[in-house]
Amino acid sequence: MRVDGRENDQLRSIHIETNYIKHPEGAVLIHVGDTKVICTASIEERVPPFMRGQGKGWVTAEYAMLPRATEQRNIRESSKGKVSGRTMEIQRLISRALRSVVDLKKLGERTIWIDCDVIQADGGTRTASITGAFVAMTLALGKCVESKILKEMPVIDFLAATSVGIDKSQGEILDLCYREDAGADVDMNIVMTGNGEFVELQGTGEEATFSYKELQNLLRLASKGISELIEVQKEVLGELANNIGSESV
Amino acid sequence: MRVDGRENDQLRSIHIETNYIKHPEGAVLIHVGDTKVICTASIEERVPPFMRGQGKGWVTAEYAMLPRATEQRNIRESSKGKVSGRTMEIQRLISRALRSVVDLKKLGERTIWIDCDVIQADGGTRTASITGAFVAMTLALGKCVESKILKEMPVIDFLAATSVGIDKSQGEILDLCYREDAGADVDMNIVMTGNGEFVELQGTGEEATFSYKELQNLLRLASKGISELIEVQKEVLGELANNIGSESV
Amino acid sequence: MRVDGRENDQLRSIHIETNYIKHPEGAVLIHVGDTKVICTASIEERVPPFMRGQGKGWVTAEYAMLPRATEQRNIRESSKGKVSGRTMEIQRLISRALRSVVDLKKLGERTIWIDCDVIQADGGTRTASITGAFVAMTLALGKCVESKILKEMPVIDFLAATSVGIDKSQGEILDLCYREDAGADVDMNIVMTGNGEFVELQGTGEEATFSYKELQNLLRLASKGISELIEVQKEVLGELANNIGSESV
Amino acid sequence: MRVDGRENDQLRSIHIETNYIKHPEGAVLIHVGDTKVICTASIEERVPPFMRGQGKGWVTAEYAMLPRATEQRNIRESSKGKVSGRTMEIQRLISRALRSVVDLKKLGERTIWIDCDVIQADGGTRTASITGAFVAMTLALGKCVESKILKEMPVIDFLAATSVGIDKSQGEILDLCYREDAGADVDMNIVMTGNGEFVELQGTGEEATFSYKELQNLLRLASKGISELIEVQKEVLGELANNIGSESV
Amino acid sequence: MRVDGRENDQLRSIHIETNYIKHPEGAVLIHVGDTKVICTASIEERVPPFMRGQGKGWVTAEYAMLPRATEQRNIRESSKGKVSGRTMEIQRLISRALRSVVDLKKLGERTIWIDCDVIQADGGTRTASITGAFVAMTLALGKCVESKILKEMPVIDFLAATSVGIDKSQGEILDLCYREDAGADVDMNIVMTGNGEFVELQGTGEEATFSYKELQNLLRLASKGISELIEVQKEVLGELANNIGSESV
Amino acid sequence: MRVDGRENDQLRSIHIETNYIKHPEGAVLIHVGDTKVICTASIEERVPPFMRGQGKGWVTAEYAMLPRATEQRNIRESSKGKVSGRTMEIQRLISRALRSVVDLKKLGERTIWIDCDVIQADGGTRTASITGAFVAMTLALGKCVESKILKEMPVIDFLAATSVGIDKSQGEILDLCYREDAGADVDMNIVMTGNGEFVELQGTGEEATFSYKELQNLLRLASKGISELIEVQKEVLGELANNIGSESV
Repeated sequence: MRVDGRENDQLRSIHIETNYIKHPEGAVLIHVGDTKVICTASIEERVPPFMRGQGKGWVTAEYAMLPRATEQRNIRESSKGKVSGRTMEIQRLISRALRSVVDLKKLGERTIWIDCDVIQADGGTRTASITGAFVAMTLALGKCVESKILKEMPVIDFLAATSVGIDKSQGEILDLCYREDAGADVDMNIVMTGNGEFVELQGTGEEATFSYKELQNLLRLASKGISELIEVQKEVLGELANNIGSESV
Repeated sequence: MRVDGRENDQLRSIHIETNYIKHPEGAVLIHVGDTKVICTASIEERVPPFMRGQGKGWVTAEYAMLPRATEQRNIRESSKGKVSGRTMEIQRLISRALRSVVDLKKLGERTIWIDCDVIQADGGTRTASITGAFVAMTLALGKCVESKILKEMPVIDFLAATSVGIDKSQGEILDLCYREDAGADVDMNIVMTGNGEFVELQGTGEEATFSYKELQNLLRLASKGISELIEVQKEVLGELANNIGSESV
Repeated sequence: MRVDGRENDQLRSIHIETNYIKHPEGAVLIHVGDTKVICTASIEERVPPFMRGQGKGWVTAEYAMLPRATEQRNIRESSKGKVSGRTMEIQRLISRALRSVVDLKKLGERTIWIDCDVIQADGGTRTASITGAFVAMTLALGKCVESKILKEMPVIDFLAATSVGIDKSQGEILDLCYREDAGADVDMNIVMTGNGEFVELQGTGEEATFSYKELQNLLRLASKGISELIEVQKEVLGELANNIGSESV
Repeated sequence: MRVDGRENDQLRSIHIETNYIKHPEGAVLIHVGDTKVICTASIEERVPPFMRGQGKGWVTAEYAMLPRATEQRNIRESSKGKVSGRTMEIQRLISRALRSVVDLKKLGERTIWIDCDVIQADGGTRTASITGAFVAMTLALGKCVESKILKEMPVIDFLAATSVGIDKSQGEILDLCYREDAGADVDMNIVMTGNGEFVELQGTGEEATFSYKELQNLLRLASKGISELIEVQKEVLGELANNIGSESV
Repeated sequence: MRVDGRENDQLRSIHIETNYIKHPEGAVLIHVGDTKVICTASIEERVPPFMRGQGKGWVTAEYAMLPRATEQRNIRESSKGKVSGRTMEIQRLISRALRSVVDLKKLGERTIWIDCDVIQADGGTRTASITGAFVAMTLALGKCVESKILKEMPVIDFLAATSVGIDKSQGEILDLCYREDAGADVDMNIVMTGNGEFVELQGTGEEATFSYKELQNLLRLASKGISELIEVQKEVLGELANNIGSESV
Repeated sequence: MRVDGRENDQLRSIHIETNYIKHPEGAVLIHVGDTKVICTASIEERVPPFMRGQGKGWVTAEYAMLPRATEQRNIRESSKGKVSGRTMEIQRLISRALRSVVDLKKLGERTIWIDCDVIQADGGTRTASITGAFVAMTLALGKCVESKILKEMPVIDFLAATSVGIDKSQGEILDLCYREDAGADVDMNIVMTGNGEFVELQGTGEEATFSYKELQNLLRLASKGISELIEVQKEVLGELANNIGSESV
């Protein structure tokens, strides 16, 4: 049995609260077990310099943790004067993942700023960020369609993420909480779309290695978990869910 | 009538939610109208280098805003690589204010780290931070007393803060929301204790000046508002409120 | 008796030497007791980006100390690679204070850069900076009027600053020297105009608090001191003093 | 046919020149087609603070490019004053990969510093860095064994890396050169050991996605390429190759 | 006899390998004894802001060392987040030296970026950088002439550099290797042109001083060494050497 | 005739005011024509880490300019967050120069911090800094001898610096003021001791070159000027001058 009593292929309980804060165009608070992330999407009416004049939009993400999101207090990156390698890696991952399901031409010369701020961490903050940010982004773009800023919804498909891993005694497990993550031999973050394709796959043997057979098991678990996460996203988005990728069918 | 229909001497609605996140020793979410701040208190079993060996503790605070706490998205200070003058000023204010009601000798060689993270801003974020942080700190110190880490509560008195200001058409007003703050001629932040003494007074004529008589009116409003804020703190702290400053009576 | 033999309501000796260095449009060396600050005013024929196109000017100030302005050598902020919170707070204070007595529309799209460099520190460096910078700025603007760059003097009123404080054994005192400042329970910096209005009020109980009555005494002392400082400014400015705020009468 | 005439499952020509520079304990210049990286390994007789007192060693890597390693000149990261997210991501990848084949206990409280400096870039610089750094590290540790600093070789297994990708017109391809990389829809970096296990797997759909079947093809290509790279490492290491992982068999 | 068996007036062996890396317009690897520097020249079709609109070009240089170019590993300047004073001094020296032999008007509004990256250091890295960079720059400008980007070669004269020094036991010596440099009492870097004029002269008594007579001996040695270096440059440049300064004769 | 009417071999008027500010152990204001520099010397009872345990002292210098020391206002280096290459070069020069006349063993494990702050600049600020700093340092060390912290004066010889240069129309000139410096073809800074030896020689052809004969003329001018500067130092130091290098005679 896992530390929190789950089955190996069982997600933690998921809850996505929409419009959690009032200013952003899209905002959710996502709970994945005890991990809580505020995800917001802001629409800016221009693109970064390297994208100008191409008639296309851009999606970029930032990620941070409150100092006491964790068991031990972390020093703020603003106080340190620089963003850590871990943070940059996560920001780049979230950005790439979301871009893969946005039709940047339909977006036009606009930037979607995604902000993922972890207020409580218990493992899987980067994958919870992606799952939550997808909803925030869709809400924001839904408003743009409603207010005629955009002609049609530029979101091509659903997108969610989870982690899988290998623990020597437990085998392959889905959606690791912090205690599991800290002890795992292999740790993999997977991002998939609504039609079951891969967007990102980042697997690491932490001072360990893994076989092809183990990899196959991990991918199976991830695929199951992500399907369930997308079901939650659909419920939360309601009507809006019908506009996603409608045209691409 | 004020922009949100309040009387000149009326606070916005106040709500303090305790144990908002699970890891910190003390944690609250304070609402002052639409301003929402997560305030946490973390106890570290050592003091900064300049305080070592004096048998006394220290209180230090950090303050930040989520990028979309505001109407327009702000660039993160971690991305800019430096903390702004405004942030530093606020951090120093919160730190000094809380230190004034802690008996640092009773605290022993420990540091109380206060983190105030604004998740939604509508004016008065620094004063809401102080009012909320006082509760978070007291909760954390209450736990230290309960677990015998501390022999007695080192909090000497209650502490809360509010803003007052002068608007040409409206006169002197209490607890300015963002729209009022943006238009005010004079803006003053005031921190007071439970026994009605001043801890901090920061008044600024924004390209304007103010008379002694106006100052007296502002102080009267602040005093009224802070009494009410302390009543809310007492309710929230319950039993714990009785241990504050008990000895100093 | 105070450490340097003064009465509680007595300023230190004040001396303002004009044209202390040759390049700036306005430059003074102000002595407030043993505190010596070089204050310069430079006129730039443009405003910062956020002010452009409004037909108004801007006033901004920078403050620094020579490493051995103090008893112990301080590390240069350029070597540390960042400006401290204390410096930023002071720079913001000086900037706001001077802006309150300049008619920014009459200034036109110009920036007044104020530089206050403390060459010897003995308490009250920020208030000496304001008092001296006012003279430097007025000299610079006087030259602009003389050379027809400006049609009329944009300075609305006189402006000076001092500190007041409370020492347990001494009571309320005016214009604290360094030894007094280091021991004071309450420390307040006050900026006032020639017509006796407040511009800034920053009072802090250093791990202490103060009552309304004490505050009244402090304000009375500050008011007396600032009147005297403005008398010195008038003497130093000579003819130019007559052009200040003439129109607003 | 590929842009450089290779088969889809064909590596570029590989050359590893040992002892390329004289000071480091281990140093190679690796050529993977036109990509050239100087990889050095330095042994330091202590570990970073967070590892002290555990009787274990550490492996850490840094990566950089000369400004004109690329078609267009890049600004130096030292001039920019910060290391980019891309560089950090690569440094973390190289570090983790090498750690997975070192028995940190046998290494004792020592740090292996790996430096990978790209002097000419034509795609695959991070995987060439790993393949070359493995040789440099083994050479350095071989010297430690020879000079009795270490009792036995702490390298557990061989380690090499390559990239695979999907190009719409070309299908799945092995070891992408720069032109292929720039146009690829999917890009994956894979690190494997001598016994065919995975260490790292980082696959990204660049504004695209990929199916499970495509993933299987990519993994097959990578496995073939890495076997060939390890053959080259064995030749270059000569005698030393026999000491790798001998004990773990 | 010197540590490496040379005569006092003898250079180390010099070798300049052209087109060492493929992307830059000009690139050499220069060996001066065991000191090895990759020097590249990149042509940019614009000048820095302060030079715009003057119809003239600019030459600017950057210098760095690989971490293990030296006996002990150096921390990268990109990791430290700032460029050291030593590096800046060397960069400024190389830039000024090369500018002295370029007719900036003939260059037109272009920037020549020189990058000198030391891959192995054994003393004299800054002077080897200048000698090598001159060749890289001339190669790059030769290509510009060939491809009609430039009408004529803007290089006015040859340029090379070496170090001279005084060692108490050895007297005045030419082209110090690292061991000699570390022990020298006086150290001087000299840059001269093909017609025997001085461009730069930087002599330092390292906690020592030197007489006018010693200075004369040092200058004589430098002059001899630089003539020999320029002979090597001429051989390496072949035909191109004839275009240097042709017009100015 | 020169722009300010001097002969080619004539220094500007020199004035050195001692004890200009009260806190430092040694402090002067040096005037060289219109160039004015506050030079202070601070004694710290320890050495930097790399010098510890060697029984020797250290001398280190910092240099800065007030923003309006110059015709145009300069941005503060503290605001820019980094020290410029020019400043670093000057700081290193002043440090080396002063170290050459201090017997570091007699100094013991102490650091002399030299601070040179230019309050008004008119050319030659680095050489004025050296000439003034020598006096400040000697005053500080004189106090150490007087108060028995040091047994004997560790200053071995006098030290002063000046600039020389070549102007096409004027020929070789001594002690360039700003206007001369800006137009000069060759610029050389020279530091010499009381017994006429060289300590530093930094000559630069600014997009120009110079012959051996011109160099000889420049050195002759410098030697004359420095003798005169040392005469002024002797007068200012009075009695203390007799203790300099007494033992080494």
